[in-house]
Amino acid sequence: MASREKHDRMANAIRFLSMDAVQQANSGHPGLPMGAADIATVLFTRYLTFDAKKPNWADRDRFVLSAGHGSMLLYSLLYLTGYDDISIEDIRNFRQLGAPTAGHPEYGHAAGIETTTGPLGQGIGNSVGMAIAEAHLRAEFGEDLMDHYTYVLAGDGCLMEGISQEAISLAGHLKLNKLIVFWDNNGISIDGPVSLSDSTDQLARFAASGWNTLDIDGHDPEAIASAIETAQKSDKPTLIACKTTIGFGAPTKAGTKSAHGSPLGPDEIAATRKALGWEAEAFTVPSDVLDAWRLAGLRSVKERKAWEARLAEAPSETRVSFERRFSGEVPGGLDAAINKHKKKLSEDKPKVATRKSSQMALEVINGVVPETIGGSADLTGSNNTDTSQTKPLSADNYGGRFIHYGIREHGMAAAMNGMALHGGVIPYSGGFLIFSDYCRPSIRLAALMGIRVIHVLTHDSIGLGEDGPTHQPVEHMAALRAIPNLVMFRPADAVETAECWQLALEMQKRPSGLALTRQNLPTVREEHTEENLSALGAYDLISASDADVTIFATGSEVSLAVEAREKLEAKGIATRVVSVPSFELFEDQDDTYKAAIVGNSKVKIAIEAGIRMGWDRFIGSDGIFIGMNSFGASGPYEELYEHFGITADAAVTAAEAKLKASA
Amino acid sequence: MASREKHDRMANAIRFLSMDAVQQANSGHPGLPMGAADIATVLFTRYLTFDAKKPNWADRDRFVLSAGHGSMLLYSLLYLTGYDDISIEDIRNFRQLGAPTAGHPEYGHAAGIETTTGPLGQGIGNSVGMAIAEAHLRAEFGEDLMDHYTYVLAGDGCLMEGISQEAISLAGHLKLNKLIVFWDNNGISIDGPVSLSDSTDQLARFAASGWNTLDIDGHDPEAIASAIETAQKSDKPTLIACKTTIGFGAPTKAGTKSAHGSPLGPDEIAATRKALGWEAEAFTVPSDVLDAWRLAGLRSVKERKAWEARLAEAPSETRVSFERRFSGEVPGGLDAAINKHKKKLSEDKPKVATRKSSQMALEVINGVVPETIGGSADLTGSNNTDTSQTKPLSADNYGGRFIHYGIREHGMAAAMNGMALHGGVIPYSGGFLIFSDYCRPSIRLAALMGIRVIHVLTHDSIGLGEDGPTHQPVEHMAALRAIPNLVMFRPADAVETAECWQLALEMQKRPSGLALTRQNLPTVREEHTEENLSALGAYDLISASDADVTIFATGSEVSLAVEAREKLEAKGIATRVVSVPSFELFEDQDDTYKAAIVGNSKVKIAIEAGIRMGWDRFIGSDGIFIGMNSFGASGPYEELYEHFGITADAAVTAAEAKLKASA
Repeated sequence: MASREKHDRMANAIRFLSMDAVQQANSGHPGLPMGAADIATVLFTRYLTFDAKKPNWADRDRFVLSAGHGSMLLYSLLYLTGYDDISIEDIRNFRQLGAPTAGHPEYGHAAGIETTTGPLGQGIGNSVGMAIAEAHLRAEFGEDLMDHYTYVLAGDGCLMEGISQEAISLAGHLKLNKLIVFWDNNGISIDGPVSLSDSTDQLARFAASGWNTLDIDGHDPEAIASAIETAQKSDKPTLIACKTTIGFGAPTKAGTKSAHGSPLGPDEIAATRKALGWEAEAFTVPSDVLDAWRLAGLRSVKERKAWEARLAEAPSETRVSFERRFSGEVPGGLDAAINKHKKKLSEDKPKVATRKSSQMALEVINGVVPETIGGSADLTGSNNTDTSQTKPLSADNYGGRFIHYGIREHGMAAAMNGMALHGGVIPYSGGFLIFSDYCRPSIRLAALMGIRVIHVLTHDSIGLGEDGPTHQPVEHMAALRAIPNLVMFRPADAVETAECWQLALEMQKRPSGLALTRQNLPTVREEHTEENLSALGAYDLISASDADVTIFATGSEVSLAVEAREKLEAKGIATRVVSVPSFELFEDQDDTYKAAIVGNSKVKIAIEAGIRMGWDRFIGSDGIFIGMNSFGASGPYEELYEHFGITADAAVTAAEAKLKASA
Repeated sequence: MASREKHDRMANAIRFLSMDAVQQANSGHPGLPMGAADIATVLFTRYLTFDAKKPNWADRDRFVLSAGHGSMLLYSLLYLTGYDDISIEDIRNFRQLGAPTAGHPEYGHAAGIETTTGPLGQGIGNSVGMAIAEAHLRAEFGEDLMDHYTYVLAGDGCLMEGISQEAISLAGHLKLNKLIVFWDNNGISIDGPVSLSDSTDQLARFAASGWNTLDIDGHDPEAIASAIETAQKSDKPTLIACKTTIGFGAPTKAGTKSAHGSPLGPDEIAATRKALGWEAEAFTVPSDVLDAWRLAGLRSVKERKAWEARLAEAPSETRVSFERRFSGEVPGGLDAAINKHKKKLSEDKPKVATRKSSQMALEVINGVVPETIGGSADLTGSNNTDTSQTKPLSADNYGGRFIHYGIREHGMAAAMNGMALHGGVIPYSGGFLIFSDYCRPSIRLAALMGIRVIHVLTHDSIGLGEDGPTHQPVEHMAALRAIPNLVMFRPADAVETAECWQLALEMQKRPSGLALTRQNLPTVREEHTEENLSALGAYDLISASDADVTIFATGSEVSLAVEAREKLEAKGIATRVVSVPSFELFEDQDDTYKAAIVGNSKVKIAIEAGIRMGWDRFIGSDGIFIGMNSFGASGPYEELYEHFGITADAAVTAAEAKLKASA
């Protein structure tokens, strides 16, 4: 056990690296790293199972800094324990362009950053997903291969955000007892004391959600150690409320909002050096302290090696499956299964809603891809995300593959991010497209991190009918297409739906969303091809040389485009139909292909039961757009399509008028 | 007091109207109205202070159906109590196009619908704002003019959504003791028993947030009455957990998910008629029952008249102010004050961040518009939404005009909607633009309802610098512009900021957002004009006849456009600069004006430190866009602008290249 003096010096190394880096950057948050240094020191030197030299070992404990503004805490830990990705130079370059040490921890910038945090509450949401993935894989592969803790450091802000309630109530319900959350209970937020805005009894609140709760002095190493040991034995997730002083050690700013989000200033830093008896210069860690930290970074080498040995000795099928799943590769059989399914669909030509087509595709997928974990935010029968393979994942059966997330879209999306980050599983959700708004912050972070989570977003337009404008997405396709790196799909029929699912699963570094209908749609892809045409983003569904009119459409409106084409052709007007299942994959094509798809028809029309934003890319700013320019309405969907003028006839009339005008 | 039999018959009237209307529409949710009919009957016949014939009386009690899918409960109540806006025909036309009786309650469709609900948790969030508005106006105008309760009916889904935690913790902190929430504790959600996804002890959870909690049988009228009376006397907000049976009375479906969201079917309805001894045909309410309900609708006439008398007798200044504030008109002095402020700005030419310009405008506004209530989600010093007039609104001083909302963007936005709906106040927020994602569902509902809430959204681009991509909005302007009826502003300098504030305040039926910078910007509007140029949405900041190049820009990029123009003009290239503070207000102009602004320069460039989406409207799909096409990065902002190529030089180079290519 570390002596108290040694502990203090190790913790102070974090404090000084943090305050000095923030000072050098002239920007950042010194208060949290200084306040939470004792917690982090106890955790990283005595309990966290990790190997700084093999940081991505699958069964390592996970540490999530939910209070991401305290990024210097994490960077200090990674440097001190000897991760190769964070050097002292990187600490010096904190918050500078190109440095891995960004203002907030960015997943992918360095090993040891388990998730991107900063938007508050997201980390605690991710951690629930990590703990779910761990429990699931433990059930599947056994404790020999998967048996680790997930630790979180959360601040007052994380706990005030609504997402935290969704996260903790889900974790409590699922009895995720290997999830341990430290609450950095410093009582200070940006505006001042937390008492300005909150009076919540957090311990009682967590207990109400089925958590084990502990309340300690967050500067007492033995109290921290004892709490962790108690938490590790709990049959519930544990909240350890750690009373801390923000900016601990700073003579005049500690315990105040001044320590939160600004450099302390040279004078206060000098005074802190005196107060804490720290003589080392900025960015210099005394060698005894650094040695002690580096040793801590190697503490679990033996455990890591033992785990590797167990994996090597596991039955070959188990080992291969485990390794494949953590590599992110989907099983080789997926392509063949999807092709067989597509062939049958083109033969059968079902007239079904794409939410149903999605379930049909999932039935195939879940049979050959054992790592999928589906779910729904209490809309299972509407989203159709369950299949014959998906028994519920519950506290009684972590081996299940379907999560009843409850009415918690945000918690669901954040947990999915955590599951994808953990590895070994591929999470997909179920929700209404309209409620993508409820989980948009988590979807954005998935895109920023470049991780594979798949959102099934049904009831994708006024086509849902009577539920009315509160439930009818109008702007949501545009708003989601706006998020960089997110791939949105809006398939036209069962064949495209299967193709989009295949693409979503195969993109290891991009999150995606499938916008699916409630209403039935005819099969428009009547001729089978092995090529995944949806991979092109947009393609000629019906070609026409020298077309006077090109109609672009997505999803439920593709069949309207086909109908409009038939009417125009009957009038002798050559018409081409382009199906556009994904704007983003279209942009990934080469310029020649894109130019050819956009083409040069006299008249270009887009039909989508949403707003125009984004469509000028295809039809130009003088193109004809058949869609929505207001909120929807409550009524039977066929009437709504008529009411809002989204019909084949509207396209025909507009095309003829424009052709006449330009004649 | 109603006899039990009379109570039952009155409650059954709700049940049968609801199940029959859902059956007729072949769509909807009968379970909640049937389960909550007893609660609603006790509340509306004995406690709720309202007058069906004067439904918009300012001091009425508010009733919010947070579980909006149970809309037939509300429509039944409005019909039964004699509101003119809901007839039996409207009930028959439930969920039909054009009927006021939409799938979910829509504000504006009928008096008595106090807010639009359906997206879960929003109603409870709104109710907190209503209770804040009531407490504030009570402090300001006295109990004679303002002294009412806000009642809410919330379901399990409302309480599972994270927004509910933000709402209840804010309400508990503010000790909003006139807020009374009935929890329709029926234990059933769409997927089945709530126990599938949740194990929260809701009473303990609410108590942890400072609520008074009661637990009753929701089918026992006297228990309901007694709980309401207890709640009315509480010094805290009260949760009344009402154990109910979903679909109460349906012999085989009651208490199951089958009663939740589908018609019961003719057989089950017939059996329910038998079980409850109800002989009346569908859409017929026995005259004794209807009479009793209509009497209930007139219960508070005397109270309403007494209130009117008190208002009439109030000092004329008080009465005029009260009436003006509830009319929604801003004070006549606003225009002059803004003009004076603008004139000084054009003279002084300050170089300040627009977040600071906003504070300067607010200092003027808050001096002449007493009904503003500002706030911030724990970013007061960053958002600059406080002014000399805004003392904190707290449990100790409801008369304050600044709310420390805590780290609760969603709860803040939902509460603001409630404040605007209540009337008498104009709420404005403070938050980071990036976190508009956290409260997007509430912003969307404000747009759908057409209410005046103003969101101050600072740190509006990579210009915020070191905090990095988690905090840098890239797609947010596009995503917010996508929401119908929402007006987004991105002012270029202090003058435009003042103009945008004026517009935001004067638009009574549209919510708005002001995207404001962290970094300093020069004054580009150097010549004073009384005309509010920002009202045009886009206007010639620097005209040029026969311009070869037109540069469109917003916010912080307008000064870059001005700089690029200088460089181009120096090269003999005639260049025009168009400032575009608001896409939406631009679209409201006439076609001639819009065509003139878009113009026909050979080269059109748009500069905005966000994504291109939406800009083709101005520059065409072949226009030059200088902006972002990825997430941002962490670093000093000047370096980021260089790194991402958002510079005057980039615009100049691109313009020259295009002019050369087209020569």
